Amino acid sequence: MREPQWRSKPHSRRPRDPKRDLRRARRTDIVVLYGWHTVTAALNNPARRIRRLLATENAMRRLAEGGIPLSVTAEVVRPDVLAAQLTPDAVHQGLIAEADPLPSPAIEDLATSGMVVVLDQITDPHNVGAILRTAAAFAVGAVITTARHSPEATGVLAKSASGALELVPIVTVQNLARGLLALRERGFLLIGLDSSAADDLAAIELRVPLALVLGAEGRGLRQLTGATCDRLARLDLPGAIKSLNVSTAAALALYIASRATAS
Amino acid sequence: MREPQWRSKPHSRRPRDPKRDLRRARRTDIVVLYGWHTVTAALNNPARRIRRLLATENAMRRLAEGGIPLSVTAEVVRPDVLAAQLTPDAVHQGLIAEADPLPSPAIEDLATSGMVVVLDQITDPHNVGAILRTAAAFAVGAVITTARHSPEATGVLAKSASGALELVPIVTVQNLARGLLALRERGFLLIGLDSSAADDLAAIELRVPLALVLGAEGRGLRQLTGATCDRLARLDLPGAIKSLNVSTAAALALYIASRATAS
Repeated sequence: MREPQWRSKPHSRRPRDPKRDLRRARRTDIVVLYGWHTVTAALNNPARRIRRLLATENAMRRLAEGGIPLSVTAEVVRPDVLAAQLTPDAVHQGLIAEADPLPSPAIEDLATSGMVVVLDQITDPHNVGAILRTAAAFAVGAVITTARHSPEATGVLAKSASGALELVPIVTVQNLARGLLALRERGFLLIGLDSSAADDLAAIELRVPLALVLGAEGRGLRQLTGATCDRLARLDLPGAIKSLNVSTAAALALYIASRATAS
Repeated sequence: MREPQWRSKPHSRRPRDPKRDLRRARRTDIVVLYGWHTVTAALNNPARRIRRLLATENAMRRLAEGGIPLSVTAEVVRPDVLAAQLTPDAVHQGLIAEADPLPSPAIEDLATSGMVVVLDQITDPHNVGAILRTAAAFAVGAVITTARHSPEATGVLAKSASGALELVPIVTVQNLARGLLALRERGFLLIGLDSSAADDLAAIELRVPLALVLGAEGRGLRQLTGATCDRLARLDLPGAIKSLNVSTAAALALYIASRATAS
């Protein structure tokens, strides 16, 4: 049963301990979203089922002013109640939502137009969130990954994505090389980013549908991933540092590919 | 006196408590650098004066294998001794160095070729560090800011910069508008990034020396900063999200400007 037990008895006489409730949520596949952009994007997403919403008075006023629809009745709490639910470095900005994870589409469901981003063992939720945010800015159709983020990591990822988790579907595949072959089957050109590649991404011919494949910082693409790509390309960097943060590399690659394939 | 008291008695008979020493270091303007790329870049920088080096046995072996010069005798310690010196989220990778801050050049000292980046109230050390790293990849001459980072923030900034703090000088100015005028005096074209600007950065004429001026996420450029620029420009983003993380925006702007001004 996905719905947590306590949801079925909303009018139970026992007063709720919000801390215990969230601890329960963390044991299921419910994700805990926090932060203004993250939670308001979830509230604005008709495909996102919100189970519970905690908000400060201040945040309630801003939600009302912004005309943001509430699919559940918010529980108005003090800021310290919100802070107590999260790790000390998490910035809630007055809002926490418990929600069902979004459905993960299959590669067969992806539109065969535009771009997708494929992540090869990029697991850090800050990086994945940052890539998702940039992907939304470049109208990317999906992010494809083998990583299954824990509910806690999903919260961090969602915060870094600043609302983009609601906009760019994450496709989770078991085996990345097979995922790449499925993309090629659907017509995608597979370009792997590799700092040691001979060709500059900006100098090679690109077309849509296009899959940009990124490896983890330092390690790069795994051998099989690189071998499965149609072509490898590097970013041309004139300075002394040749290695970028992976989310920065993703942004530059998306910019270059977006310009090159714009009709 | 910049040199901390305890440094003048290196042969004192009293055994050192490394934790107390670092606490003292934090009260002076000594910066605590940590992480493999950050510390090895500092060791490789002849302009950086290292006061003290703590390393695990593993890190010592890697330093020797890499032929990295040690300007001070390293103190070999267990990993947990390093971890205890830093905040829990700081990843030391076997190396901590206490060092003097690098000298901050004046605008009058900057070369009047290439690009500089100007930060208007961007203070988050993760963002500044990430911008510094990308700046090094694009051979940027300097980053100009009004922010004076605390020694602790400098450690975070240096880690995010992944070695780039040794490569790109930070110019600290009292007043940003005056700093911009000094840049213009030296021939710099001042381009402010502004998501509501009419012109696409990629579509306007750019030339070196060029100063790219970036504002904080959300707030953007302050009114006077924008008014002092020669021109405002936006990044053209085709997707649903129009606001990027500031370090991502910096990377795209640097890429565009670098391509447009390459001879």
